[in-house]
Parts: sequence; structure tokens; C-alpha cells
Amino acid sequence: MLRRMSRLFLRTLREDPADAELPGHTALVRAGYIRRAGSGMHTWLPLGHLVYRKVERIIQEEMDRMGAQQVHFPALLPREPYEASGRWTEYGDTLFRLQDRRGNDHLLAPTHEEMFTLLVKDLYSSYKDLPLSIYQIQTKYRDEARPRAGLLRAREFVMKDSYSFDVDDEGLAASYEQHRAAYIATFDRLGLDYVIVDAMSGAMGGSRSEEFLCPTPVGEDTFVRSPGGYAANVEAVVTPRPDPLPYDDVPPAHVEDTPDTPTIETLVAFANAHLPRDDRAWTAADTLKNVVVTLSYPDGRREPLVVGLPGDRDVDDRRLAAQVEPAVVEPFAEADFDAHPGLVKGYMGPHALGVDSPTGVRYLVDPRIVEGTRWVTGANEPGRHVFDLVCGRDFTPDGTIEAAEIRDGDPAPDGSGPLEIARGIEIGHIFQLGRKYAEALDLRVLDEHGKLVTVTMGSYGIGVSRAVAAIAETTVDELGLCWPRQVAPADVHLVVAGKDAEVVDTAERLATDLDVAGVDVLLDDRQASPGVKFKDAELLGVPTIVVVGKRLADGVVEVRDRATGERSEVTVDDAVAHLAAICVS
Amino acid sequence: MLRRMSRLFLRTLREDPADAELPGHTALVRAGYIRRAGSGMHTWLPLGHLVYRKVERIIQEEMDRMGAQQVHFPALLPREPYEASGRWTEYGDTLFRLQDRRGNDHLLAPTHEEMFTLLVKDLYSSYKDLPLSIYQIQTKYRDEARPRAGLLRAREFVMKDSYSFDVDDEGLAASYEQHRAAYIATFDRLGLDYVIVDAMSGAMGGSRSEEFLCPTPVGEDTFVRSPGGYAANVEAVVTPRPDPLPYDDVPPAHVEDTPDTPTIETLVAFANAHLPRDDRAWTAADTLKNVVVTLSYPDGRREPLVVGLPGDRDVDDRRLAAQVEPAVVEPFAEADFDAHPGLVKGYMGPHALGVDSPTGVRYLVDPRIVEGTRWVTGANEPGRHVFDLVCGRDFTPDGTIEAAEIRDGDPAPDGSGPLEIARGIEIGHIFQLGRKYAEALDLRVLDEHGKLVTVTMGSYGIGVSRAVAAIAETTVDELGLCWPRQVAPADVHLVVAGKDAEVVDTAERLATDLDVAGVDVLLDDRQASPGVKFKDAELLGVPTIVVVGKRLADGVVEVRDRATGERSEVTVDDAVAHLAAICVS
Repeated sequence: MLRRMSRLFLRTLREDPADAELPGHTALVRAGYIRRAGSGMHTWLPLGHLVYRKVERIIQEEMDRMGAQQVHFPALLPREPYEASGRWTEYGDTLFRLQDRRGNDHLLAPTHEEMFTLLVKDLYSSYKDLPLSIYQIQTKYRDEARPRAGLLRAREFVMKDSYSFDVDDEGLAASYEQHRAAYIATFDRLGLDYVIVDAMSGAMGGSRSEEFLCPTPVGEDTFVRSPGGYAANVEAVVTPRPDPLPYDDVPPAHVEDTPDTPTIETLVAFANAHLPRDDRAWTAADTLKNVVVTLSYPDGRREPLVVGLPGDRDVDDRRLAAQVEPAVVEPFAEADFDAHPGLVKGYMGPHALGVDSPTGVRYLVDPRIVEGTRWVTGANEPGRHVFDLVCGRDFTPDGTIEAAEIRDGDPAPDGSGPLEIARGIEIGHIFQLGRKYAEALDLRVLDEHGKLVTVTMGSYGIGVSRAVAAIAETTVDELGLCWPRQVAPADVHLVVAGKDAEVVDTAERLATDLDVAGVDVLLDDRQASPGVKFKDAELLGVPTIVVVGKRLADGVVEVRDRATGERSEVTVDDAVAHLAAICVS
Repeated sequence: MLRRMSRLFLRTLREDPADAELPGHTALVRAGYIRRAGSGMHTWLPLGHLVYRKVERIIQEEMDRMGAQQVHFPALLPREPYEASGRWTEYGDTLFRLQDRRGNDHLLAPTHEEMFTLLVKDLYSSYKDLPLSIYQIQTKYRDEARPRAGLLRAREFVMKDSYSFDVDDEGLAASYEQHRAAYIATFDRLGLDYVIVDAMSGAMGGSRSEEFLCPTPVGEDTFVRSPGGYAANVEAVVTPRPDPLPYDDVPPAHVEDTPDTPTIETLVAFANAHLPRDDRAWTAADTLKNVVVTLSYPDGRREPLVVGLPGDRDVDDRRLAAQVEPAVVEPFAEADFDAHPGLVKGYMGPHALGVDSPTGVRYLVDPRIVEGTRWVTGANEPGRHVFDLVCGRDFTPDGTIEAAEIRDGDPAPDGSGPLEIARGIEIGHIFQLGRKYAEALDLRVLDEHGKLVTVTMGSYGIGVSRAVAAIAETTVDELGLCWPRQVAPADVHLVVAGKDAEVVDTAERLATDLDVAGVDVLLDDRQASPGVKFKDAELLGVPTIVVVGKRLADGVVEVRDRATGERSEVTVDDAVAHLAAICVS
């Protein structure tokens, strides 16, 4: 394919667009690959669409290769199946809802578990029909609270979503492994670096779940890895639970006056000044901090929750949010304190907490708060704290919760050493849904003994438009985009650097010959200075840049590698063979 | 590609689905190509999606070949651009409207004129940038009042829509011709029969407009053709306007009592009984029928309109609707008569009609009602009619309107003889939009003299999902689907007709060899009787059916042509070469 820039629907921008936050997104807009069409909505321009199509095709090929079969559902769907699964409500504000001319409720699907489940129920009835993996590549809709980062968090985006259907858990495990392998092959072909991390299953329910994260400082997701190979999304990190401690020699709990100490800092300072320890100074880690929030459920129900954690750690909002989904965490306001007089602001303590306590407020603690640990914490009275309060002796929480922040250097759950924290873009997600949807929608098949069994499902997603963004963000440099060849909009960016007939003729001939040789060429035949053309070539990021210009006097053209910046010269006669070899290799 | 039916996500149905109205649609559902997902919404199953992709690719290739560049807009869009063009209102109930979580108005785009116009405005500014043709293949939404006929009139469907941008009318004409040629190439490749007919430009405004109609009795569109090659959508048929007639010897108009003659039939009967002509009997064609309707505009405005036409013809609702768009035609109810006492029901006559008449009601007549024509028509009094009323002498309408029904045998506008009426499916539409959108959205470029000129546009659409349906409807036979090879889900449907090891082994080997030879094979390796397999093979409609069965005893397999039913035998050894030749030819 030979494309001429003189006719290409393209304008490169000299200045950064106002709405671009990330370097890759900025470059995609500046280079004329995409353009904003609305909040969280993007238009693909011709070069962007070429890249998009190549990415899509690779994903499609790998899905087909693993034996998944492509189908296609509507994006606009009636309410009923999502009502049956509960997600019409659970999705909250993130779901785009609308009514048709008859007043019937519809939605723009954010994901299609229900439809896949119903389709299989419609067609299949026997274990002999399974296993089955089906997929679609389709436009999805989510009314994000804060659309941002261009293609990374859009309100309209494209996903490849597949679903596996098996008669038993072993089958699901096998289907899951097949998808995992197909994802590895896919991301390898896309030239994307990735880490496979343990993940929460989130609103979907289910058991095993992993994310493919593309490591980059601009990623929205935080994950951890250990020296021993453990890796997890920060939401899914499991805190190692210490062994119980002996507490026979701990003195009985005693309440002390600690005036004006509503915060951990003021409490620690007061204790060190007025109630010093013999062995060392008090630190925040000696205190048990109790944080109260309101959980707001999709059905409108609201309830308070108190999270107890060591005073030297904060609650990580995203970890907490992941634990309580589909409920949403909201602040516990003054009015809420008024409504719960048993909760003393700034001085809450375990005695007033728990479903069996007078307040009846649920009380979950960090997994580090094990039996025998000894704490300074609120005494449920203004200006008073309790000391030497021992977990398991003096109080028993309702359970534990993974809500505390993870820190670089925290011990890894696999015991292999300290955790390292990094950021990444989620490019894929695979997980074992289990029977949630099959049960809700009654998808059952006859097993080999003629008994009806509920099917078990897996769900697997790749963000197609997001993969384009991830490639851009992880390959962009200070000059612009820098595509891996397999997804680049062309193999060779051929710059006509001069107006002499010989330069022009040679470039045209070279372009044609390369086209014939099966090399995709983007020919810069515009009326513009070589300087402008070089800058645009770097911005556009085609992997190989060829310059036909001054050096033609010596019978040579220049070949530049966009990624490494390496330059070499090749004779005009050798150019086609040389470039074909580069592009095919 | 080798696909095994034992693993294909497919169930063929023995019975016709309840919602299928047309033979092609019925077969698509029965053969497991598509499935209903909601009113006017369909899911593509694997075989259907394979056909869809082949159709899409052919369209894409022909667009690329003509130099159109592919882009992609969101389907979910903010209200503003459609507000600027007036279409937010004009589209009426057909537009899916919704609000996001912030309460901002959005729509699901039924078509993208505004977005394409704004994009070009955003990027281009000079005549040097033009001509430009850009296209997308994208999901569209229309809240049809009566979704029907499966993929033919769906609420979610896929279109290829392109737009051309030119600096002047000659440029537009050239772009239009290019698209026309590309459409011809596309439909030829798709194996679709088509007629190119003159069309109305409808809600879009603009000048030249043609539709590609695929002739079939099940089509929704009616069109006409003449012996001389004139062809037009019935909405666009231009009625030949007769020459004016001399009327010097016509006696003055005279009002007669015609009690109880509110209809044409009663009037003609009364006239023949009580006011007979000397030369011949009165017929309905002597009467001028005045039909009153209400036009309801998108902005809520309503006005009456009277259409006058020869009494032997009815108003064609679709022709009238096309003429008054974007207004919608509604009945003129009793209450409307009460509000317009000047309109005497059953006895309306030209004297009381017209914007300058006492009623002020607009009065448009059929083009056959030319100067000098002589009519019996209402006298605006109950039970009275006026005779010898001459157009141009006794009354002057406000204008003409193409609203009368077209009849088989009507004279063709090209003068070549009688019109023939036929039905077809609209598979493509090309038209010269002109400057409507460019003006509304201020798309101007500098011309070669440095003057700002408004760009002129063309708009060109192909229904992608509809093309699949059109192929199905025009190739289906009593046995099932019957795909042209270029869009078929496979080249060869290979039936394993028997359980003997030799049959199975030979079929498996043949399937593998064909796959290697580049022939797409659908292998029926299911545990089912040969009879069931033959029936399914006919229903599925792969162009070549190969049977490996009893005749293997003589070393031959049977080759059936699905379309013609022809059968031949070929030795196992020759089979691959024979089939490869058929499939490649």
C-alpha cells in the first residue's frame, strides 16, 4: 500500500492539545491519529484507524487460533436480562440508560455476561456441547465519573470480550489457561510489555482472576511485585497475617485522660509527653486507628462501617472500594455522627464497635491486628484513650478487611522479601466467573449422567482501543510516536527532501517499487520544507524513515530507525531489497 | 480454514421462528446465522459473523480503492452539533436520546453528517486540501416505529457512510461519480443484483440523489422503470406534466345540487343518473378530489394541507411523506374540521382553498391538473358540486405536489412508454448534499483567489448488515440459504456421511488437504444421520457440498452445487485439485 501525505486526511499540530494529559495521548492527537469528539469520546483519523485495525486483527487472529468463535451482540439492549442479573441497579451511574419511543427501558452495554449466558442457554443443552469459548469485538459504554487520559478511560471504547462455558471446575480451569496463553501470545505480538497480576474479581463475583498490566508510570493501576515472582493489583494484595502473640504478661487495659488528642499525631505526642514508655517512644504504629465511612448500596441502602488499622497506615480508598463493591464508599458526615451518638468522633474505640456492640456498627480490621496485639485506641469518650487493649482478650472485631495502604517494602505474601510498587495500564483481564450468571439466568445442561448441572463460566477481556493507547504511552519519546512495526500505520515513511526533479522522481520510483515489493509506504510528497517533513516523520512514528534528498548526488538515500535513531546509507539501487529485508524481518 | 461442525456454536432450527417474516430472514435464523436480541436488535452467530465480515471487507476494499480514507466516529455523541444542524429536533421520535450522569443531552447517531463536517472544518482550510472523501463503517441507531424484516429494518445496524468535500459543484459531481463507480464495483463483487434509481433527497436536502435497489418482491421500497431506462424510487417519480389545454369553449362553471355525494363514487353515480354527459359517462377521472391532511413539524407547529388530485387516483402516503419531510403527515380529524369551518367535509372545492383564499389553507395539486383542465369538484357547501371548473380560469392552486399514487402502465417521464412497478431493497444511497451542512456548521475554505467559500458535500451510504440480508433474500430457495462464493462462510461443506473408519478417515484427510490448499472447509463431523447432515448443508448454503459416503466404495466422492443442485462425482485422488479449481475460479 502506498499512501501519499499530499492526499492524506491529516494535520499535525505544533502545540499540545488542551485535553491531553499523557505523553502518548498528546502525541496521538498532535500526530493526527485521534481527535476528541466529546467528553470521553474519540474519533479515529485515518492513521489512527490503520493502527487500530492492525491491533484488532492480531487480537482476532489469536482468539480464532485458540478456537474461540466470534459472535456479535448489539450494544443497545433491553433492560430485562440486566434486571435478572441485578446489574441494571448494581452498575449505578456508570450505566448509560435510555428509553425508546415506547418508553421501554434500554441500556448501552458496559459488558455482555448476561447476553452471552442467555445465548448459550438458548442454543445448548448438553455437556457434549461444552466446552465452548465465544467472543466479540465490540463497542462498549461506561458513563465514567471522570473520563480522562484519552483512550485509556473513555466513555465509548472497544473491547474484545470472550466467555467460556464449562460443565465443571476442571473444564473452567482449562478454558482459563487457554485464554491466558492466548493473551500472552496476543500481547507478545502487539509488542506490549506486561505483568500478569492477581486481581480482585470485583463486581463480577467469581474466583481466580488475573490482570495483564502494561507497566508504565502513567498507568492508572497500581500493582506490586515481590522478588519471588508474586504480583498483584494493589486492590488484590493479601497482607501476610502475623502469628498470634502471647499476652499473658500484658497488664489489664486502662483508660487514660488524653485531652485534645483527636488525631494520631496529637495522641502520640501527648502519650510521649505525659505517659511515656520505659523501653522506647510511642509511635503511630502503637495506636489503633478507627475510620468510619458510609457504605451506599445500589438499592439505596446505607450503613456505617468502621475500619480499624494501625495508626501509621491510611486507608487506601481503592482497596477499600474493591472490598465493598457493589456498595460505594461515602464520607461519614456530621449528620451521620448525630444519628449514631454511640460513635464518638476522634475517640472511637473497639468497645463501641461491632455488630454485637451497643452501636451495632460493623467493625472490620486490618489483618495485622491479630490475637495478642496490644493497642492504644479511643475510649469512646471525648479526650480519653484506652491503653494496653489486647485483641482477642479485650475485643473481637467482626472480621478483617484488606483496606490499608500498601507500602513499598512491605513484606510480600510469598515470603520472598519486600514488595515493590509500580504502576501500569490494565490491558487484559481474565477471570473465573463461576456460576453467578448461569445461576441468575438458569443456564443448565444435562451432564453425562442425565442430571441438570449449572454451567460454570469464565470471562476474558482485552481493551482494543486501550491497547492502542498502551502501545503509544509505552513507546512514545520526546520526538513523538514510535510504533512497533506490526501495528505501525506503514513500514516506511519516505521523505521527499527537495524539489529537484531527480529527487522527486527517485522518491516516486522508490515508493512504487517498495509498494510492489509488499512494503507499506507513507510518502511525504507534500509541498513543505525538509525540516517540517523530518519533524512530522518523527512525530508520526513509522518505524523506518527513508530520506531521498541531498545525498542522492552520491547515489544514496538515508535510512533512519525511528526507535533507535540509528542512521545508515544505502544506494538507490539496493534500497528496495534492503528495506524489504528490514520490513519483513 | 477448517471449521468442525462438532465444535461450531450452532443449532439449526427445524421450525420457522415466530418473528421471521421473510424467507431470507427465516433461513438466516433457522440456519443459526443470526438471532433476535430484542426488538430490531440482532446477534450475529459465528457463521453469520463470517459472512458479515466478508461483506464488510469487500466494501472496505472498494472504498480504499477509490481513495476514500477510513475514519471512525463515536456512535454516542453530544447534542450540540445536531442542535446546530436542526436535526436534534427534525429526527423526531426516530432519534435515540439519552442523558449522561451530569444530565447532558446525548444521542445515538443515526448518521454523521455533522461530525464529518466539523472534523473537516477542524483540520482543513484551503481549496488545496480538497477534494476529500472519508468514510467509516459503523454502528447506527434509529428508533424505528415498526422494526421489521430482521436485518432489513433494525434499530441497531451497521452502515458504511462516506462524505465527499469539494470546493465547487464540478468537484462534487466528480466525487459523486467516483462513489457511484465504487458502489457499482462493490455490489458487483457482492453478487447483488441492483437497479440505480432516482431518489428523493429527503430530510437531508441537496440535489442529485440515487439509490441502489436490489430488486426483490420482499423489498420495502417500490420503484419504477421505463422501457427507455428511466428508473426511480416511487417517491421520486416525476409525473409528466401535460400541455395546457384550450378552454375557450368550456361553458362557465356552474354549481349543481348533488345531495349525499360525499365520495367520488357517489358523486359519479349521481352525475351519471341526474346530470349525464352527451358524449360518454362521467368517470372518477373527471372529478377533482381534495384531500386534507395535517402537517406536523418537528418544532411542534401544525398546519393543514389540501392535496388536489384526479378522482381516480389515491394519495400515496409515502410519496406525500417524502414531499413534506421533515414534517409528518397526520390525519385531519373532526376537531380540525371544527377549527376550520371554511373546509366543508366531503365537499371541499378550490374556491375555499389556497393561501390567499378565505381559509388560508395551502392547496397543492397533482401535476396533471394543468391550465385548461376541466373538473367536477366540491362547491364548499354540503350536497353541492361545481361542474366545468377550469384550472387557470376558475382557480389557481398554490403549486403542485407529487403525491398521487403511481400505477403500473403510467407514462414514463422519459417518454419511452409505460412505467413498470417493482419492489426492491435499498442497499446503497448516494447523493449530493450540497452546502446544507457546510452552511449550518460554517465549513468554509479559501479558494484560489483567497476568498472564503462554502464547501459542497456529498453523502454516500451502504447498509452493511442490510447487504447481508439482501443477499440472503435474493438467493434463498426452498431448501435454505444459497451464498455467492465470495461471501459464503466456507467454500466447501464437507459431509461425513457414515461412521465407517474409511469414510471418517477419508473425510478428515480431504478436509485437511483442502485446508492446506487454501480452501475454506466446513466439516460436518457431528454424530448425526446423513439425512440430517444433508438437510443442514442445504440450509446453511455453502456453495459447494461434498459428500464422503457410500460411493467411497468405488473410490469417489460426490460434489453438489448448492445453487444449481447439479451433482457430479470425482475420485478421492482428484478431489482436492477439482475443488480447489472450483473455489478459486
